[in-house]
Amino acid sequence: MKILVAGLHAPNAPRLAALLGADHDVQAASALPAQGPIEADVLVTNRLGADEAARFQGRLVHVPGAGVDAISQDALPAACPVCNVHGHEIPIAEYVTHALLDHFLQPWRLPTELDARAWPAVYAARPYHREAAGSTVAILGYGHIGEEIGRRVRALGMRVIAVTRSGKVDADIVPDEIVTTAQLEDVLPRCAALVLCCPLTPETRGRVGAAALEALGPDGLLINVARAEVADEQALYACLADGRLGRAVLDVWYRYPAEGEVDVAPSAFPIHALPNVRCTPHVSALTPGLLERRYAFIADNIRALAAGTPLRGVVRAAR
Amino acid sequence: MKILVAGLHAPNAPRLAALLGADHDVQAASALPAQGPIEADVLVTNRLGADEAARFQGRLVHVPGAGVDAISQDALPAACPVCNVHGHEIPIAEYVTHALLDHFLQPWRLPTELDARAWPAVYAARPYHREAAGSTVAILGYGHIGEEIGRRVRALGMRVIAVTRSGKVDADIVPDEIVTTAQLEDVLPRCAALVLCCPLTPETRGRVGAAALEALGPDGLLINVARAEVADEQALYACLADGRLGRAVLDVWYRYPAEGEVDVAPSAFPIHALPNVRCTPHVSALTPGLLERRYAFIADNIRALAAGTPLRGVVRAAR
Repeated sequence: MKILVAGLHAPNAPRLAALLGADHDVQAASALPAQGPIEADVLVTNRLGADEAARFQGRLVHVPGAGVDAISQDALPAACPVCNVHGHEIPIAEYVTHALLDHFLQPWRLPTELDARAWPAVYAARPYHREAAGSTVAILGYGHIGEEIGRRVRALGMRVIAVTRSGKVDADIVPDEIVTTAQLEDVLPRCAALVLCCPLTPETRGRVGAAALEALGPDGLLINVARAEVADEQALYACLADGRLGRAVLDVWYRYPAEGEVDVAPSAFPIHALPNVRCTPHVSALTPGLLERRYAFIADNIRALAAGTPLRGVVRAAR
Repeated sequence: MKILVAGLHAPNAPRLAALLGADHDVQAASALPAQGPIEADVLVTNRLGADEAARFQGRLVHVPGAGVDAISQDALPAACPVCNVHGHEIPIAEYVTHALLDHFLQPWRLPTELDARAWPAVYAARPYHREAAGSTVAILGYGHIGEEIGRRVRALGMRVIAVTRSGKVDADIVPDEIVTTAQLEDVLPRCAALVLCCPLTPETRGRVGAAALEALGPDGLLINVARAEVADEQALYACLADGRLGRAVLDVWYRYPAEGEVDVAPSAFPIHALPNVRCTPHVSALTPGLLERRYAFIADNIRALAAGTPLRGVVRAAR
């Protein structure tokens, strides 16, 4: 089969080719053709506009990640399924656990000079920090990622409130409390932190606005590893800037640069310049281990497609 | 009863007085009298020289921490027990978990500028980091602290090798592997990190020398939250300086300033100036929660002493 690895993920084409061997033809394309049919059996991409989707006549669109919000599913031919792949829950849960511990331990408050002159004064005035244990964290979206976060923060002795659409969870790591999305603002005053790790959907877009951020409050921490747009951009900036929200650790952004684009700000507001925000450039899942797990999964699915056996990670079934 | 809270911990006398109420007389003393009897029923201190111990005629020495290595137990009157108190295992385990995640996530490698000019280039060149999951950590000393570290790092998907004197552990959180102290150098080549959280004893003093540090190796991380002297001072400096050991996170030191002392270096070697060391000023357990737990425990023990009921945390029984 012909497999096209497109866009941001094109550099991973050799990795997939190595996994699939000589039976398949794997090609990289930093951009998809601007017109005419998109000729491939399998398209590996995390971004597919409606016009592109309509021109794809292949057998499978495989997103090399979890989020399918940038795939125009409705424009795809009915017979073409869409698959996604997980595996990023481990590094993302590590990123979130680190961000939580950072928030309680506040290592930036510690003096960095420990020479003979500094040591006596530093030792005499050692700052106290806080404990994560005993605090409560709300997790908006308790899927693969939320559960792995839950596993780690419960071992820290933190309480977990899962906030889900249904008010139920399907998970081995059971949260201390489960509420519906409508109850988010009710539970946040009891929470030291809110972690966003839900998909971006019409229901979650902008769901975390001023009311939620104010309920989290001036001592609260927001961690966003989902999609930026789950938090209302203007409310987030305003609440952080005037202290209604204490701190934020943000790994996802409102604007991403296209290939070759310059002078693109990650937000329309100078969120990155606020002193109470830690900004990272969408790296929470960026580990070699993630790529190994993901492309092994994608290669398995391509072999399954070739063999006519069932696909895994089907987000949209062939119709 | 008269209770003397002495030395470094003297500022906590009001906290203890508030817990004990009017039945007991709690006094603070930044230093013990230089001669003559030390008159108190209970002495709360983490440091007691042989001369001081011989002059104490009271009924209990209560260390407001776990380490009793600075108490000259042999010089105490035979009838005087020594108690210690735990509770620091929670903040110390949080400190260690944070240090481990820091080591794998390497947040210092991330660009901090995310303005419109920087964002496209930063996004195009995002650095990969490593995962804690799947790595192995050796924990030298698997007591209260070691077990709480074990609980947290196992939830991170790390393997735990407990290294203990007996080759056995008495713990609910069972390590993946248990070896004796003699086998330390044998297991370290398989470990990403070594955490020191054992008591300082004649057997552990200097136990971690060049052989252990080289076995941990140029990618390895040493975390010391025990006592500095468990790691040989000269070997630690030399191995970090020439890269035989990758990194260290050190919260405990070879020299502590006495009250009013100036120009005291934390080590005879400029460990603090090495780029691959993170130094903190003995803060791993320094949380308000710790003080609350500790002084509640000490107050309970003082009430037990007054009532003639059994003491908890007895390190040395009355003889």
